[in-house]
Amino acid sequence: MKQFTSVNDVPNPKQLVESALALKRSPAGSLKGIGANKTIVMLFFNPSLRTRLSTEKAALTLGMSVIEYNAGQGWQLEFEEGVVMNGEKAEHIKEAAAVISQYADIIGIRTFPSLVDRERDYADFVLQQFMQHATVPIISLESAIRHPLQSLADWVTLEEHRPVHRPKVVLSWAPHPRALPQAVANSFVEWMKLADVDLVVTHPEGYELADTFGQDVNVEYDQHKALAGADFVYAKNWSSYRDYGKILNQDLAWMISPQKMALTNNGKFMHCLPVRRNVVVADGVLDSPASLVIEQANNRTYAAMAVLKAIL
Amino acid sequence: MKQFTSVNDVPNPKQLVESALALKRSPAGSLKGIGANKTIVMLFFNPSLRTRLSTEKAALTLGMSVIEYNAGQGWQLEFEEGVVMNGEKAEHIKEAAAVISQYADIIGIRTFPSLVDRERDYADFVLQQFMQHATVPIISLESAIRHPLQSLADWVTLEEHRPVHRPKVVLSWAPHPRALPQAVANSFVEWMKLADVDLVVTHPEGYELADTFGQDVNVEYDQHKALAGADFVYAKNWSSYRDYGKILNQDLAWMISPQKMALTNNGKFMHCLPVRRNVVVADGVLDSPASLVIEQANNRTYAAMAVLKAIL
Amino acid sequence: MKQFTSVNDVPNPKQLVESALALKRSPAGSLKGIGANKTIVMLFFNPSLRTRLSTEKAALTLGMSVIEYNAGQGWQLEFEEGVVMNGEKAEHIKEAAAVISQYADIIGIRTFPSLVDRERDYADFVLQQFMQHATVPIISLESAIRHPLQSLADWVTLEEHRPVHRPKVVLSWAPHPRALPQAVANSFVEWMKLADVDLVVTHPEGYELADTFGQDVNVEYDQHKALAGADFVYAKNWSSYRDYGKILNQDLAWMISPQKMALTNNGKFMHCLPVRRNVVVADGVLDSPASLVIEQANNRTYAAMAVLKAIL
Repeated sequence: MKQFTSVNDVPNPKQLVESALALKRSPAGSLKGIGANKTIVMLFFNPSLRTRLSTEKAALTLGMSVIEYNAGQGWQLEFEEGVVMNGEKAEHIKEAAAVISQYADIIGIRTFPSLVDRERDYADFVLQQFMQHATVPIISLESAIRHPLQSLADWVTLEEHRPVHRPKVVLSWAPHPRALPQAVANSFVEWMKLADVDLVVTHPEGYELADTFGQDVNVEYDQHKALAGADFVYAKNWSSYRDYGKILNQDLAWMISPQKMALTNNGKFMHCLPVRRNVVVADGVLDSPASLVIEQANNRTYAAMAVLKAIL
Repeated sequence: MKQFTSVNDVPNPKQLVESALALKRSPAGSLKGIGANKTIVMLFFNPSLRTRLSTEKAALTLGMSVIEYNAGQGWQLEFEEGVVMNGEKAEHIKEAAAVISQYADIIGIRTFPSLVDRERDYADFVLQQFMQHATVPIISLESAIRHPLQSLADWVTLEEHRPVHRPKVVLSWAPHPRALPQAVANSFVEWMKLADVDLVVTHPEGYELADTFGQDVNVEYDQHKALAGADFVYAKNWSSYRDYGKILNQDLAWMISPQKMALTNNGKFMHCLPVRRNVVVADGVLDSPASLVIEQANNRTYAAMAVLKAIL
Repeated sequence: MKQFTSVNDVPNPKQLVESALALKRSPAGSLKGIGANKTIVMLFFNPSLRTRLSTEKAALTLGMSVIEYNAGQGWQLEFEEGVVMNGEKAEHIKEAAAVISQYADIIGIRTFPSLVDRERDYADFVLQQFMQHATVPIISLESAIRHPLQSLADWVTLEEHRPVHRPKVVLSWAPHPRALPQAVANSFVEWMKLADVDLVVTHPEGYELADTFGQDVNVEYDQHKALAGADFVYAKNWSSYRDYGKILNQDLAWMISPQKMALTNNGKFMHCLPVRRNVVVADGVLDSPASLVIEQANNRTYAAMAVLKAIL
């Protein structure tokens, strides 16, 4: 595997899931050789808790050195070609990416969308610029439009709870007080298409995903119908792609409640966290045995380990 | 030892002091096996120099991996039960503590008091919430009301200089331009009660410690009388518990001066640092051979090592 | 080597360059023993990308533990003797340096000049204070007036491209929208005097370096004359020493362009980065094979490794 920025970079996604599950069962200390004498530099243009801690844990478990750089503050990069750099931006992406490549065997990058400039966001501009100018493999720690490490961990978690039958997986939009990226939803759909599941996406009108992700996906606008018989309910808010970055709906009727879970086939509840309790999902669901959210967070480590191993 | 948040968590405090002293004498590199393949996640809700560096040094010396997270900025946790999370707070302590537990074998937490809400501070609210919801052992890196790693290092330092006779130890309040927590004083008293010393606390009226800590403690309001014949003088400012968080006194007459040290039994001077020179203590004391402050800072490392070892 | 704050600390600079080149050729993993059980604490009073990443990479490659501390925010140190510390400054350099020495085998410090108080800057006040009060070796990660790790890496890079004949090396001032320190230029001159090269410095009137650095240096105010026949062109902006910290000139005619490189002896282009494209140097130079800037950044790692090894 040459890089990890979307499922399209993965030659065999199912095998990567199996690798993560195998790494999860490995005895402590048995994996130090995999990343020995290798360094990951993790660049954060945006804050991170789970992704940072789990990827750092994964790299350390593989024996790698980890260097973190909070790129958000004061480090203003120039991305345009041929510009006269006499303004605020002190460094060009060409030098920045090439220089960091000198210190890293792998570069991890987190960069959020603007939620204002749809064209630039959906070109995954910052990530693509690093991919173009870096000379070592890039791992996405969540980009403007995808969060592949999350999706891989989600699939790993689903695999651990897969029923005998082909499972029905429902991605349900949920309300939220803030405008959030579409990245988690986009990625989840992209990966689930390959996961041998029946995928249904449910959301209010106006929250359709971009064609790149939403095409060939079964959309059911009636949340109750969508949830009927579900084996897994994945709740997530995202802002509108059509009215780009806008909040069109804050109707708490879309919240996942115990009553809604009762419509499912004894379904499991999933969310990438952090989650707004009693907005996205009711306490009664999150605190029930049906919730897999903490196991999802745990599996972030093994997802990252599988990715790092595959690249190394 | 299951956790380390106060002396009450320690089955045998004297043994822990001896363990720290033994670890201090260990040859370099001989301790890497103790923490091999173990990870400590250190959460800082408040800034830290000594505690951060010494605990990180201790963990690395034991062969542990260290992950730090500055939780202060932008990571607003919800602590209330059943609340509809549609405001500023993006994550509930239930998920936060459970998630971090997935990546850590031990979680260290630093959290200061508000100095406004006495009831909440003295319930050690944030620390208690993490203790309740985390699934791995918690180490206090200073909480609202206690600083047990400091007190353990203080005891270790005292032990290295213990006279033949039962020593007289004086904790003296000292002036300071800012309102400071009572944590160091509370903890010091709590630990010294078990250290086979004659403990005297001296402070102006109104600076009495909370009953939990102050009961059965010999208080002498006349600083000169208190210092007479002291073997150790521990200076520290704290704000009032009674008039909670208030500065009642800034009288420099309470500063520890060479003249006051002359009242002691050739006493040693101690302080947890950072210290305001010529406010808390005069240059002439701090720069004299009687000062143990740098050795206290050094012993922070061995205190942390003993604690980590006991938990692992 | 007892410390590394200027070329004057280095018993044999040429040998240090050769050590860096040898370390660059060392097989991965073969150097872990050099820094085993040793810790470097890196204090940043100012931001850093290259220096931080390369020094951290170097230390980790040598098997050291690395502890970083961003000292810039909230940690206000008192440097004056005998002062009554009842203001903003919570800790005195005497305690700070002595305490950090307890946790470190080597302390690295980055501290920029004020560009206002020339006397204090050129006394390298903060660095000198740490040197005075620390009890372990100090490495400069760039100080008010010098950047020796950069200069060592520059020399290493020059050595890799040294022609058969004694090379002509030109340090050329270049325009920049902000007032920058003189540190890189000062250090470069100081090291190149010992590097068996013909050094010429070119800059507009008023940009003369301080005597400590500029004496015995060949200055040519006509940039075209200076560049004629150059084997290496090192571009760098600095603010005026004479009119201290002032920008006297922003004339883009001083920018290094392909036309100017054509005056050289097929010369190589060097810069310490970050660099303002089309202000300091034209795209056509930076993107040409003549540019060594990325290799300079790469050699920062080996320069730091050579320094750490020599001190350990």
